[in-house]
Amino acid sequence: MALNKKPVNGMKDILPDEMEIRDYLQRIVKDTYRKYGFTPIETPCMENIANLTSKQGGENEKLIFKVLKRGEKLNVAEATTEEEVVDFGMRYDLTVPLVRFYSNNANDLPSPFKALQIGNVWRADRPQRGRYRQFMQCDIDILGEPSNMAEIELILATTETLGRIGFKRFEIHINDRRILRAMAVYAGFDEDKFDTVAVILDKMDKIGLDGVKAELAEEGFSHDSIEKYAALLDKGGADAYDLSKLVSALGDSLEAGVNDNLSEIITAVEAAKKADFKLVFDPTLVRGMGYYTGTIFEILMPELGAACGGGGRYDKMVGRFTGNDVPACGFSIGFERIVLLLMESGYKIPETPAKKAVLVEKGVPAEKLAEIMKRAGEERDAGQQVLVVRMNKNKKFQKEKLEALGYEQFEEIFNK
Amino acid sequence: MALNKKPVNGMKDILPDEMEIRDYLQRIVKDTYRKYGFTPIETPCMENIANLTSKQGGENEKLIFKVLKRGEKLNVAEATTEEEVVDFGMRYDLTVPLVRFYSNNANDLPSPFKALQIGNVWRADRPQRGRYRQFMQCDIDILGEPSNMAEIELILATTETLGRIGFKRFEIHINDRRILRAMAVYAGFDEDKFDTVAVILDKMDKIGLDGVKAELAEEGFSHDSIEKYAALLDKGGADAYDLSKLVSALGDSLEAGVNDNLSEIITAVEAAKKADFKLVFDPTLVRGMGYYTGTIFEILMPELGAACGGGGRYDKMVGRFTGNDVPACGFSIGFERIVLLLMESGYKIPETPAKKAVLVEKGVPAEKLAEIMKRAGEERDAGQQVLVVRMNKNKKFQKEKLEALGYEQFEEIFNK
Repeated sequence: MALNKKPVNGMKDILPDEMEIRDYLQRIVKDTYRKYGFTPIETPCMENIANLTSKQGGENEKLIFKVLKRGEKLNVAEATTEEEVVDFGMRYDLTVPLVRFYSNNANDLPSPFKALQIGNVWRADRPQRGRYRQFMQCDIDILGEPSNMAEIELILATTETLGRIGFKRFEIHINDRRILRAMAVYAGFDEDKFDTVAVILDKMDKIGLDGVKAELAEEGFSHDSIEKYAALLDKGGADAYDLSKLVSALGDSLEAGVNDNLSEIITAVEAAKKADFKLVFDPTLVRGMGYYTGTIFEILMPELGAACGGGGRYDKMVGRFTGNDVPACGFSIGFERIVLLLMESGYKIPETPAKKAVLVEKGVPAEKLAEIMKRAGEERDAGQQVLVVRMNKNKKFQKEKLEALGYEQFEEIFNK
Repeated sequence: MALNKKPVNGMKDILPDEMEIRDYLQRIVKDTYRKYGFTPIETPCMENIANLTSKQGGENEKLIFKVLKRGEKLNVAEATTEEEVVDFGMRYDLTVPLVRFYSNNANDLPSPFKALQIGNVWRADRPQRGRYRQFMQCDIDILGEPSNMAEIELILATTETLGRIGFKRFEIHINDRRILRAMAVYAGFDEDKFDTVAVILDKMDKIGLDGVKAELAEEGFSHDSIEKYAALLDKGGADAYDLSKLVSALGDSLEAGVNDNLSEIITAVEAAKKADFKLVFDPTLVRGMGYYTGTIFEILMPELGAACGGGGRYDKMVGRFTGNDVPACGFSIGFERIVLLLMESGYKIPETPAKKAVLVEKGVPAEKLAEIMKRAGEERDAGQQVLVVRMNKNKKFQKEKLEALGYEQFEEIFNK
């Protein structure tokens, strides 16, 4: 029986041209984050299924690839539910595994601990163009740092990385979950409806303020509340939202310290930043995950309609594992989106070594072959990439394929 | 409910010290193989279950982590067999996925194609010390090259990599499946018992020639056959096996060309090799996988009792996917064994950048923090690794942990 040549539905093979860009990005990412003292760590790609279905992951928990039990533990014939036949699941993000890792290994780690993770995650989404069911995430996190030093470093490190890749004139939007909450309190929405309000606010960039008002009205919120809420979100003709204006409007609805916290982050990042970007306060920024407890942020690229990464503070998640909360804050860059963007823009990797191909005709004797290999070795030592390869009958076609892989120099060795 | 802090049974968290070694190894591996013109590629971690259970993988097929079907396709209550509830499986090696990849993408690849893969594989082995159910493999393969240019390049590239890591005085053992076959034919064993004979021969390094003879006798083979077989394996007091002596003993039992093929490989490798190792003909080398069709080889390290990687020629596997055979040959280094060896020997990574930690007392104002961050940025540009981190109350303990991570230089900034 012939086997199936295709990758599994919704996942993809990565070909040499994309792979070069991915490897190059990973090198920049690792090099930059390492200089900031972020330490690479790794966790297994599978987690115990209970850890993945504990309501930390929101919608992602519906998309878990589950792993079948093995051996005596498995009895398919008698099982009636999924739970009976499954023990592990594929991780859908790197945050839940990181928190488990930290809970398990905190005694062997410095505190605060700055982690770098680059790894695949899996989500059983409906397959669609440009979105895959296995994709790479690239996260930095600081655990054990309660102050905004964490946010400042995460934003500086992430933006320096983006700058080194070549991105310019992008924006980092920043907000605080406590501001979102205060806005809803101030407007007089019921506490149990805060999530509904946030979901609608999240669409602001697509449907505008009038759209947000209309959707709030559809949900049956009072005219007064909607108008009070809308007034907070009115830029009054300005380009950007004004943090201090919003804070004074919110008054006692906002807990103390949130304003200073955000202002300090903005001041420090503006002073120390290396990349060409703006840090913008954006009270309409929501971020989907339910685990965020304070600051949240997101990368907006002019080249992309959508966000290209984001993160925030999640001070309550370690406590789910250990019983003791540990402050935590993370920033994830949209690795796959960046790869796609660079591929589509025909990005050229800087400082690629010269590539030479030596085509060897069939039948060259062993001594001559040894000589060719030896010389290739010397050229490699001198920094060149040298491919020694058999000459095909259709030499022209062979060279075309190699040129597509970046080979520019050719040497031909004949059997005479 | 408290969540489970431990990784799933049989898999492990990778801590910073090990991670540094792994990253360093990967950099050397990629850099060296790339110079030889090997191109990194990647395939999904999951494959269609039929591809993984097609008898290519031998014993490994019993160890597959299987992935549950999803949505409407899954009906646990009515299912009676595993097959009904499973569609994908985790790959147990990188060879089957590579062959599927090549079959799927050959039109977009040069021929011959030199592939480099570094990736995790999963095997549901019984957990035991030092052996994990998720582990990294690191393979190079040449597809479309029928001549021994493939073997020569694979051995040169792999040994150069090992040499650059720092390994010396190791051995590469080489044999050919066709010699194993000829030896069995010559001795007069029945064709359907060749596998049994090979399994026993494979134990030679543990049980010696007398042990092999005893086990063959236990299997009921004739005294004459066993003696003929043993005579072939007698070094006659020499240190190493003599290829030409064995070949002339085998006479017509061995197909033409095998001798020249091996001799050429040995000549060319000896002439062009860069690392300090011996290439040794070893007629007792078997290699487990059933898919090998010609040359086979294995790395033997004096530091390790066991093999530390291996490979060989498998000319019939692409045909399982496409109906047309394509010559193929690969070499895999034992990544995890090498990591373990380096960890245990206290290996120091060369050229590690200087590491400095700036400890900042709590309450430092935003402007001062901005200044600290800016200066750290300048030091990072100058090539230093600079960690800016909050000063703990127990400063001594904090420094100890950082020293364990390689920080040697400390700066303390107080809130005054």
